[in-house]
Amino acid sequence: MLDATHAPTLKSWVPSANQPGTDFPIQNLPLGRFRRAGSTEPLRVGVAIGDEILDLQQALAAGGWSAEAQAWLAPMAAGDLNAFMAQGPAARKGLRAALSAALREGSAQQAALAPCLVAQSAAEMALPCQIGDYTDFYTGIHHATTVGKLFRPDNPLLPNYKWVPIGYHGRVSSIGVSGQQFRRPKGQFKAPDAAVPEYGPCQRLDYELELGVFVGAGNALGEPMDMERAEADWFGLCLLNDWSARDVQAWEYQPLGPFLAKNFATTISPWIVTQEALAPFRVPFAHPADDPQPLPYLDSPANRRQGGVAVQLQVQIQTAQMRAAGQGFATLSSSDFRDAYWTVAQMLAHHSANGCNLQPGDLLGSGTQSGPQPEQGGSLLELSQGGKQPLTLPGGETRRFLQDGDAIALVGRCDAAGAVGIGFGPCVGTVLPAV
Amino acid sequence: MLDATHAPTLKSWVPSANQPGTDFPIQNLPLGRFRRAGSTEPLRVGVAIGDEILDLQQALAAGGWSAEAQAWLAPMAAGDLNAFMAQGPAARKGLRAALSAALREGSAQQAALAPCLVAQSAAEMALPCQIGDYTDFYTGIHHATTVGKLFRPDNPLLPNYKWVPIGYHGRVSSIGVSGQQFRRPKGQFKAPDAAVPEYGPCQRLDYELELGVFVGAGNALGEPMDMERAEADWFGLCLLNDWSARDVQAWEYQPLGPFLAKNFATTISPWIVTQEALAPFRVPFAHPADDPQPLPYLDSPANRRQGGVAVQLQVQIQTAQMRAAGQGFATLSSSDFRDAYWTVAQMLAHHSANGCNLQPGDLLGSGTQSGPQPEQGGSLLELSQGGKQPLTLPGGETRRFLQDGDAIALVGRCDAAGAVGIGFGPCVGTVLPAV
Repeated sequence: MLDATHAPTLKSWVPSANQPGTDFPIQNLPLGRFRRAGSTEPLRVGVAIGDEILDLQQALAAGGWSAEAQAWLAPMAAGDLNAFMAQGPAARKGLRAALSAALREGSAQQAALAPCLVAQSAAEMALPCQIGDYTDFYTGIHHATTVGKLFRPDNPLLPNYKWVPIGYHGRVSSIGVSGQQFRRPKGQFKAPDAAVPEYGPCQRLDYELELGVFVGAGNALGEPMDMERAEADWFGLCLLNDWSARDVQAWEYQPLGPFLAKNFATTISPWIVTQEALAPFRVPFAHPADDPQPLPYLDSPANRRQGGVAVQLQVQIQTAQMRAAGQGFATLSSSDFRDAYWTVAQMLAHHSANGCNLQPGDLLGSGTQSGPQPEQGGSLLELSQGGKQPLTLPGGETRRFLQDGDAIALVGRCDAAGAVGIGFGPCVGTVLPAV
Repeated sequence: MLDATHAPTLKSWVPSANQPGTDFPIQNLPLGRFRRAGSTEPLRVGVAIGDEILDLQQALAAGGWSAEAQAWLAPMAAGDLNAFMAQGPAARKGLRAALSAALREGSAQQAALAPCLVAQSAAEMALPCQIGDYTDFYTGIHHATTVGKLFRPDNPLLPNYKWVPIGYHGRVSSIGVSGQQFRRPKGQFKAPDAAVPEYGPCQRLDYELELGVFVGAGNALGEPMDMERAEADWFGLCLLNDWSARDVQAWEYQPLGPFLAKNFATTISPWIVTQEALAPFRVPFAHPADDPQPLPYLDSPANRRQGGVAVQLQVQIQTAQMRAAGQGFATLSSSDFRDAYWTVAQMLAHHSANGCNLQPGDLLGSGTQSGPQPEQGGSLLELSQGGKQPLTLPGGETRRFLQDGDAIALVGRCDAAGAVGIGFGPCVGTVLPAV
């Protein structure tokens, strides 16, 4: 549903928000948590606008808000984004309208709010909210097919794939925000020709290009969300790097799934791009109507019409050698979230279909978003064909898997005719040597 | 390490704690959270003693504690058991000694503490702490073998089983305490001869008999716990029922493991029986030294000598018909945690071996604890041979899987020569009809 907050002519009184190509024009207004760099102050909730952050604690104190907006801002002024998420879709839409009015050119609140801006360069970002549970889905059919081919050349997709939005529970404690640095994991793995396994530093360390979905108000235990409610409830998206130890995964994952191969680190971007900001970029979902027809609890007219979200995605790398030589990040691959086989609403509806209670701020990973072409793999496992074909990087280095010092950046952008494009901000993580 | 708190001659001034067969003699002293029944007061941390609970907020205020004990009690008086867990093993041992001295016959604190007792019958128990992440292991080798035989008669145990303490992440939001009632989950499943799957109420609902392990201080991201630290760190045990939807599990679990088959409900007992209370019941671990020798990161002399814990376990059932007829619970099976293939310390050491950070109050499930005999299966899947052989219950009813109205109770007791036996308290959950 497009409204005045999406108007392409809308400008902000924050000059950097009007720069072409900024991730954070006034049409975006993503939410995150930060503190002033170097301080130990409690986390503050803020809205990204251009190169700045509007501090919502100060903004509430600055006045000029309606009574409704004050109620929406109150939990955020206390640093609690989850409590705002719990207020549901009406609050999310209402606050967006209020923030859009406050930050647009000519706003009566400009003078009061200008002192509430903090430069993003002077802020340290944190996880945007408390994450209670983290679930990782597997909606990237091109990823599932390519990886399946490595193990089962004749039968890459398992029979349940087109019926069940496959997912599994992940680890919350090791989720970090862009800038995360983590030690190369150690683990247990077994070479195909070895008699026994060994324990040592992972030899096949990889990234996975994903989006993260934040749950809004959620559902009570025993009360599944139908598709309509699931579509309304999801709060917004971020970028998500599901770092993976392929050698550990291959040895441990039977019969209960990935565990230590995944739970040593997960990196997300700091800003939640809300469902409303993504409205201009909705597309029909990729699942063809008869391939097969989804079961009724996973189907709705709105989902068929515009269940998908077109987010252009990239993975970029900067090795230690590139960094030392002053080189920036180089692109490894590109894909688009519009190609996901299952939509965000289907993830929520399926997750709660057994009565499982989703809670405000819970995080769902989309699974690796690879494109249909071989060069569009969302992981090195795919791009190097299981480690058999090394990639050559600018500067001549090669990679089958990640080496110590490698930094991986995920990039997400939405652009559409007649809309102002928006972005997701940084999602960078760096591999440190094993202890 | 046995000390004065384990002396079999030790008696409490709380008379019910000296009754033979009580779960909570003064040698136990488990910790939990409660509120007065029917109230909405904040949760209080308490210690079970006989039929009573010592309210630690009131107990701290009653005075008579050393300065050290006051520091240990302070977070608990604020209702925060996690903060006490974070203080590590020395605090856990020290508080046990202080509570044992305070509650024993002849204690100078008796008069001050007597008014701080709350009858367990007048308390509503809650989860004993905030659980950040929940992981379910698979340490029951007899369960793994029996279930494996149902799918792979010639090769029941997968090649990694005796090398890797297999585990996977579970769902925190749906963990409830004894007394939990939950709706029969709906889900997607496919009959072997059906062309397409369907969505409806689970037809093969089951329980799993497990123990839960609470993490103590845990470890920082990137810093694995070695076996010595893992052994010292684990805080205590509870009973855990890992309710399972077998038909959903069979259809969804490839390739990423169980998900909706497990996350609709998990029931635990309300009291954490500490590692120190379990000291008289430690046994050599069940993994034969050469079958195979564990990798060094999973091995230690102390673990070989007494890594196991002998806990006698039972599963009991009370159907709606039994309840209506005034019949109590009937035993379905018995087993012992001493038969687990992996020890508690090995679970923590493995979980953190890749740098994954465990946090105070994290919960680890042991996996289903079945005994070596067919009648010792810790789930109906095992006892009914995959649903083929119905069980006959007292009163003549039969069960292949659970029916609406069935209540399942897990029971745990520790007994050993020369020690006063201890118990775990109730772990009861009831199946309500699907919506």
